[in-house]
Amino acid sequence: MSRYWTKRVQQLDPYVPGEQPQDQPYIKLNTNENPYPPSPRVAEALTAFDSGRLRLYPDPESSRLRQALADRHGVAPAQVFVGNGSDEVLAHSFQAFFQRPQPLLFPEISYSFYPVYCQLYGIEAKRVPLREDFRIGVEDYEGDCAGVILPNPNAPTSRLLSLQEIERLCALQPDRVVIIDEAYIDFGGESAIRLLDLHPNLLVIQTFSKSRSLAGIRLGVAIGSEELIEGLQRVKNSFNSYPIDSLAQTLALASLEDEDYFRESCQRIVATREQSRKALEQLGFRVLPSAANFLFARPPAGNAGELYRQLKQHGILVRHFNQPGIDQWLRITVGRDEEMSALLETLDQLGSVAK
Amino acid sequence: MSRYWTKRVQQLDPYVPGEQPQDQPYIKLNTNENPYPPSPRVAEALTAFDSGRLRLYPDPESSRLRQALADRHGVAPAQVFVGNGSDEVLAHSFQAFFQRPQPLLFPEISYSFYPVYCQLYGIEAKRVPLREDFRIGVEDYEGDCAGVILPNPNAPTSRLLSLQEIERLCALQPDRVVIIDEAYIDFGGESAIRLLDLHPNLLVIQTFSKSRSLAGIRLGVAIGSEELIEGLQRVKNSFNSYPIDSLAQTLALASLEDEDYFRESCQRIVATREQSRKALEQLGFRVLPSAANFLFARPPAGNAGELYRQLKQHGILVRHFNQPGIDQWLRITVGRDEEMSALLETLDQLGSVAK
Repeated sequence: MSRYWTKRVQQLDPYVPGEQPQDQPYIKLNTNENPYPPSPRVAEALTAFDSGRLRLYPDPESSRLRQALADRHGVAPAQVFVGNGSDEVLAHSFQAFFQRPQPLLFPEISYSFYPVYCQLYGIEAKRVPLREDFRIGVEDYEGDCAGVILPNPNAPTSRLLSLQEIERLCALQPDRVVIIDEAYIDFGGESAIRLLDLHPNLLVIQTFSKSRSLAGIRLGVAIGSEELIEGLQRVKNSFNSYPIDSLAQTLALASLEDEDYFRESCQRIVATREQSRKALEQLGFRVLPSAANFLFARPPAGNAGELYRQLKQHGILVRHFNQPGIDQWLRITVGRDEEMSALLETLDQLGSVAK
Repeated sequence: MSRYWTKRVQQLDPYVPGEQPQDQPYIKLNTNENPYPPSPRVAEALTAFDSGRLRLYPDPESSRLRQALADRHGVAPAQVFVGNGSDEVLAHSFQAFFQRPQPLLFPEISYSFYPVYCQLYGIEAKRVPLREDFRIGVEDYEGDCAGVILPNPNAPTSRLLSLQEIERLCALQPDRVVIIDEAYIDFGGESAIRLLDLHPNLLVIQTFSKSRSLAGIRLGVAIGSEELIEGLQRVKNSFNSYPIDSLAQTLALASLEDEDYFRESCQRIVATREQSRKALEQLGFRVLPSAANFLFARPPAGNAGELYRQLKQHGILVRHFNQPGIDQWLRITVGRDEEMSALLETLDQLGSVAK
């Protein structure tokens, strides 16, 4: 604690991302990274990039990239915002739309960065309990509030809401922004982007970190009505004129040019996910139906924390949240087939000890 | 204006960066970019980079880069913070240290992003008038306040404060953070980093965009006492865990490995600056002594706005600030020798018309 920090910064309880230990090579199934490299087009664009260009500022508006995203999603470029990872897009969204006297509504079990943004911007957080089996009940998000945010599919539960449910949610809060955080939508869900024409209060946030294998370039996207995007632009242009560097703009564009590769690598991950899910169930795990690139699974003895530590000792990282309600569960990223086999074998060995 | 925007966002008056028109090639002397490419080491590191790595998140702590910066500046890694361009570092600093009931003090003529950050974070701005010849008088920054920020050399005036003056300023405000924004320090000033041992309230901010020819990767740096850096880390980890992408970390490290190239390209710019300054004075311009990679110059007739437009028609971009006190002045980035010759010739031609 320092007297130089402002009061709000003294009270912050910052977000802790999944661990990235450097002490030995691990099978990394803990940060929902994609096990496959980005499209070969990305490699080509990187090779072709002239480093002399780096002396210049990037396009502050990322115009070509926003045009390509608009084309892909069938919206206007003025409906597209890009940020330095979807975390930055989320942060700007909290400030642009949610910094109000009323509380912000989000699921009690959800992305653990949301309450941190609330602290950062002085927003009251109202955590809405989940229903049975970690289901989100959209009817629970009614009433006076600063807005609503939820991931779809939800993290870390992997459960998906239907577009009908999202639509009902938007209609429940016509005067407030409803953010659907679609970091994992490409692994089995349908994007709410097609609801935008009817709901000017809907903001959809996506990322290049998961389905596009580009966590390393930091690119997040928001798509919504022009008035919401203009609100985000106002915050961005009051924070950092040039958030997306030249290489990130170039490589993201290259990725968008290769839809086939994108679809195939998503399909491969979905196939591995479903195989792994069955195998975990055969080991006695309870596994929620997943529409994401990870599985949320409860070991037979509920000893998730212990199992996390044992797996780490065996060189396998998964994520355990020491949080009431989910502390008996593990979040397991879907890796390559051979990584999942290694996980399942290790669990099988450990199982005979743990049971 | 939209009802979905928060009140603060409705009242924002966002920053407008120097124009980047795409309609024709220009001689770009308007955004203080470096006319020389980054070190050949940067090109090598780019070529050697394996795009497959991009599927993974970057190191959230930029540990190797911070270690290299610490080594270069003779401080501990815990005294180094990095952000997505120095604008992001500035934004986080305003929130970490200046969001207080008292007003923030900064020069009336200075980097025009400072008042925008004040709006974004609800900080009262107190603009301190300059002395004669655009000189900053550090004695004017006394009294109860949220803190002090000023660029050294100042922008757009290019004038430098001595380390003795910075030291006096830090001593005037021992209970508040004093930020020295050293975006241009490598072109003729001495960094205040060597004052850090005596002044735990001093934060020095630098950038890779100017002297390191890397505006395209977005990298800003803050160096200060461990308690100030920890304050910045708290804000960063409540905003975006992974602000610096993998390529930016790699290329910035490569740049730091080539001190010779860095020094030589700074020296070349300083030599061109001094030649250009004399030539402008011969054309009747008044030019302030510059310690930066730009010149602040008043045309003989004071018709800076008109001259800016005429130069643009001739394919040369400089920066004109339509702001009382400096609207008769132009800020001219120091380009390559041939670019400056083109500027001077054009000014000479226009001069006979304008006078």
